[in-house]
Amino acid sequence: MEEVKPSAVEDKAAAEEAVEERVAQEKTEDSTAQNKETEEREVDVEREMEGEVEVVTPCPTESHGLQGTIKGHDLFGYVGIEAVLDQMRRKTMKAGFEFNIMVVGQSGLGKSTLVNTLFKSKVSRKSCSPNYEEKISKTVKLQSVSHVIEEKGVKMKLTVIDTPGFGDQINNENCWEPIVSYVNEQYERYLKEELYVNRKPRIPDTRVHCCVYFLPATGHWLRPIDVEFMKRLGKIVSIVPIIAKADTLTMEERQEFKQRIRQDLNANGIRVYPQTEYDEDPEDRILNDKIRENIPFAVVGTDKEHQVNGNKVLGRKTKWGIIEVENVAHCEFTNLRDLLIRSHLQDLKDVTHNIHYETFRVRRLNESNLTVHGLALVRDGERKTEEESEGWRGGE
Amino acid sequence: MEEVKPSAVEDKAAAEEAVEERVAQEKTEDSTAQNKETEEREVDVEREMEGEVEVVTPCPTESHGLQGTIKGHDLFGYVGIEAVLDQMRRKTMKAGFEFNIMVVGQSGLGKSTLVNTLFKSKVSRKSCSPNYEEKISKTVKLQSVSHVIEEKGVKMKLTVIDTPGFGDQINNENCWEPIVSYVNEQYERYLKEELYVNRKPRIPDTRVHCCVYFLPATGHWLRPIDVEFMKRLGKIVSIVPIIAKADTLTMEERQEFKQRIRQDLNANGIRVYPQTEYDEDPEDRILNDKIRENIPFAVVGTDKEHQVNGNKVLGRKTKWGIIEVENVAHCEFTNLRDLLIRSHLQDLKDVTHNIHYETFRVRRLNESNLTVHGLALVRDGERKTEEESEGWRGGE
Repeated sequence: MEEVKPSAVEDKAAAEEAVEERVAQEKTEDSTAQNKETEEREVDVEREMEGEVEVVTPCPTESHGLQGTIKGHDLFGYVGIEAVLDQMRRKTMKAGFEFNIMVVGQSGLGKSTLVNTLFKSKVSRKSCSPNYEEKISKTVKLQSVSHVIEEKGVKMKLTVIDTPGFGDQINNENCWEPIVSYVNEQYERYLKEELYVNRKPRIPDTRVHCCVYFLPATGHWLRPIDVEFMKRLGKIVSIVPIIAKADTLTMEERQEFKQRIRQDLNANGIRVYPQTEYDEDPEDRILNDKIRENIPFAVVGTDKEHQVNGNKVLGRKTKWGIIEVENVAHCEFTNLRDLLIRSHLQDLKDVTHNIHYETFRVRRLNESNLTVHGLALVRDGERKTEEESEGWRGGE
Repeated sequence: MEEVKPSAVEDKAAAEEAVEERVAQEKTEDSTAQNKETEEREVDVEREMEGEVEVVTPCPTESHGLQGTIKGHDLFGYVGIEAVLDQMRRKTMKAGFEFNIMVVGQSGLGKSTLVNTLFKSKVSRKSCSPNYEEKISKTVKLQSVSHVIEEKGVKMKLTVIDTPGFGDQINNENCWEPIVSYVNEQYERYLKEELYVNRKPRIPDTRVHCCVYFLPATGHWLRPIDVEFMKRLGKIVSIVPIIAKADTLTMEERQEFKQRIRQDLNANGIRVYPQTEYDEDPEDRILNDKIRENIPFAVVGTDKEHQVNGNKVLGRKTKWGIIEVENVAHCEFTNLRDLLIRSHLQDLKDVTHNIHYETFRVRRLNESNLTVHGLALVRDGERKTEEESEGWRGGE
């Protein structure tokens, strides 16, 4: 069907022209200085740009040869490429985005308070059951609450997944299992949505973008339950370990405890966020190295405001002073907030999508249920109608 | 497995609390004014935010109930959600993006010149074959050339797909077929990449984001070949029709010709970009309506610069004056550039992905080759290694 001859001819012609172009370019560069003052002259702009070699591909299915980079100063005027950044910004602001955060740790470590402090609103409900039996559930139950938080015109659908009952039992064997299941179920749900023949233009994202693991401020070392949990979950989700209620530690105790935890994580091969292997470039590496040297952040949460030197500050008041949550000299709450929201939120989403979800997808497609003799498949008829959760976008 | 009772109990409790919360909130609002001057007081911030009703879902697989919107003024401080916009911006700048533009129209309408004028560089090669036979090819051949254009730190991999031979024959029957095939082949290629078990984190995008269709400035009406081409292609790709070499038309002729083309497009049910049905919101509609009232843009391209009133301008010099390409009083080149680059580039990519590609995907998965008894399937072994084209990202 395809003609081979013209291809060869054109390639040869292109190669010959490339040589001519280089010569032409050199000539142009020589003569540029002389022409400067000429009024109403015609500049052959074409010539000035013939720096790169072009190979014209003569048939539709051939791969696209890449012809080097044309940088700003090579252009004969302003194109406006970077306008795409504003176009994306506008679209993101209109569409909003999802962020799903899971908090794990035994009861009484202030998980809800911390999340409320992070998002400056009551996005997580404290347990307030009237009797003991409901307060201490016998199994780990997962509870999720979603809110849309809008700030400066940007809408975030925040889902906080709480895990009451984790680590609260006499025997905590396998208490991570409901959590592992939950994380995987969200990947499964996303995968199904992606594989449907008729699918939504925007797949609802319930995947856990971040799992904040609360370590009690014991000042000792990682407990077996911490090691077992993070070992397992670190493989399927981005874990951010933190030292909760860190106001019980002196500065020296805090540094020592943090150091020991980092050693323990290392010794047990536990992978926490941000992971070195997912640094995108040297710039990222430098930024993330600073974070890695400093984890786990020792934090204090509160939903109470106090007056300090005439300013309202979030803090915990004691007889011996006020620990200010957002004061970097007092605790590392702001480091945590910067990581989760102000510098790495999009990266947490990207790592979830590109690393954890892809890993799940490969494993899942190689399993039996979605595969027949090495073929991945989708049943379109099985789709459930889940339209209700998408009303938050775009509407006021 | 799942306990039904706690769910019911919690729902009831939540509903009761919601009522209490509203009462509490009203009380708080009443008393706020009185408390203003109190020094070092404790504000129960929790109370101030209990405006929304939360339903706690007690089991992991239940869908997430959405609890209304918390707006900026409801937050007890700055969270920093909009930092995600800068994070995305930074990531886009690092990663770069792809834009693939196809130009279609008979030879001599200045397709290459116009594309070079749009991107202020020699991104499309003019035909310059030495003999007649090569100049006029007997069939429509597709040629693609890629360049990376970098401006203000934003990298765009631009691929220009030219279609020499289109409309140049005595008998132009089916001359759109190679073009239809090319467009569909790129969708097919993307679909395969998406369905592989082991796939790339970023699927190389060769899909045609925009097809600029060149109408000769006849001053008459759409020719049968124009109608036939746009009818077919308008269903699978975003078409932007333009009047080429518009300097041959007086202002009155231009307006009349444009009007007649719009009527012809309408009468033939031809869908060109931007299509009303894909407007995202009323704001978009108003913006796009203005564009729709004004298509097809009557343009002039050039790669020559002239001095006009001491300024260098892109233009075509004649004995009777200089037509300035970027002067809105002279021609509509800037309208076209704004549409393709400065205001709608991301939308062209989004419409390609969300509308045209999805339409192709549904049709393709319902066909035989990728489907067995209504099941879509992928063979992982068939993957070709096409790593070579991805070297442009991130590299200098």
